[in-house]
Amino acid sequence: MKKPATPTVEPEGKGSETRERILTAAEDLLRRHGLAKTTVVDVARALEMSHANVYRHFASKTELQDAVAQRWLHRIMEPLRAIVAEDGSAAERLERWVMTLAAQKRAKVLNDPELFAAYHAVAQAARAVVEAHIDELLDNVAAIIRDGVERGEFKVADPRAAATAVLNATSRFHHPYHVKESGGRDTSDEIRDVFKLVLAGLRSGTL
Amino acid sequence: MKKPATPTVEPEGKGSETRERILTAAEDLLRRHGLAKTTVVDVARALEMSHANVYRHFASKTELQDAVAQRWLHRIMEPLRAIVAEDGSAAERLERWVMTLAAQKRAKVLNDPELFAAYHAVAQAARAVVEAHIDELLDNVAAIIRDGVERGEFKVADPRAAATAVLNATSRFHHPYHVKESGGRDTSDEIRDVFKLVLAGLRSGTL
Repeated sequence: MKKPATPTVEPEGKGSETRERILTAAEDLLRRHGLAKTTVVDVARALEMSHANVYRHFASKTELQDAVAQRWLHRIMEPLRAIVAEDGSAAERLERWVMTLAAQKRAKVLNDPELFAAYHAVAQAARAVVEAHIDELLDNVAAIIRDGVERGEFKVADPRAAATAVLNATSRFHHPYHVKESGGRDTSDEIRDVFKLVLAGLRSGTL
Repeated sequence: MKKPATPTVEPEGKGSETRERILTAAEDLLRRHGLAKTTVVDVARALEMSHANVYRHFASKTELQDAVAQRWLHRIMEPLRAIVAEDGSAAERLERWVMTLAAQKRAKVLNDPELFAAYHAVAQAARAVVEAHIDELLDNVAAIIRDGVERGEFKVADPRAAATAVLNATSRFHHPYHVKESGGRDTSDEIRDVFKLVLAGLRSGTL
């Protein structure tokens, strides 16, 4: 393909493959050298590719960063999407969803602190990508809450407002800043206590 | 007085007065020049005092910073302590306490951003001061929850654990990082929704 690829819709085939290779190389360089020291030219050199070829896929360093962050967030969301798609108790699924989100973020801090720091910086810069991510988190929680209402587990008039409240109430455990600050400390017991309050709220018809 | 003053217990009289003057001068310099550029020598110069005299009250720049942060936090806590001491509905007082804490932090960002940034840096460095502050916040919330249990409003077996959960669930609205990040945006509606969940939890006997 000769035309520049758009960052969200990507056709199958060779262009898509090259795009993935560029993202993987960029991820690797971010891990080793950090965001400030990673340039499009470095990425091209690592792939023995002309930087014109990289620019064919990503029009700027910012676009490349956004795509790297987007792919990272996509991977984090995989087990969460699976929980949303399950049948079974909404209360149990919502608790598992919150615990999984916190565990995913925590695992990044523990297993790959340099990459987490690089991604955190990317995420802070890439506002639109982060907004789309938060929207997806809200959609996930609202979907489980709607299931809970249908199953007669929850009494909630406005699932979207309730989803916002659930994410706000638990952000202490999954927001990148706090995950970083707590150095990957296990906060499971504290999450469970907050979740008990949240669950009582979703059952009470208060929202 | 000739002996160095300890930072927490301070006798009444001239020593205490000098100590307050030093803290006020340090606060003023922090506001104008930031934490990195404010030295004990600057504080002494602003007061036309020998720096040996400043050191008589604060053994190091760190000790001075801690005391400045402590005084700032003490001021923030005044209206909160008053709410704890009131009679009346525990649910209403707890909501007002949370809203007041968020409003206090928000006011600092809006009205005095430079000083807030300097204090935020001081707070991040002065771990012991911050821990004492969080302990006081927990004590406040636990006291209101105990009142609520006595008044038959709440069903809570472990008020301290419940207080931790309440502060965790609302930290999105009063933690310095988020207050700074949100640029002082009014989050009252979002706090109220989270508080509804929290309140249902405190009434349900889940904690």
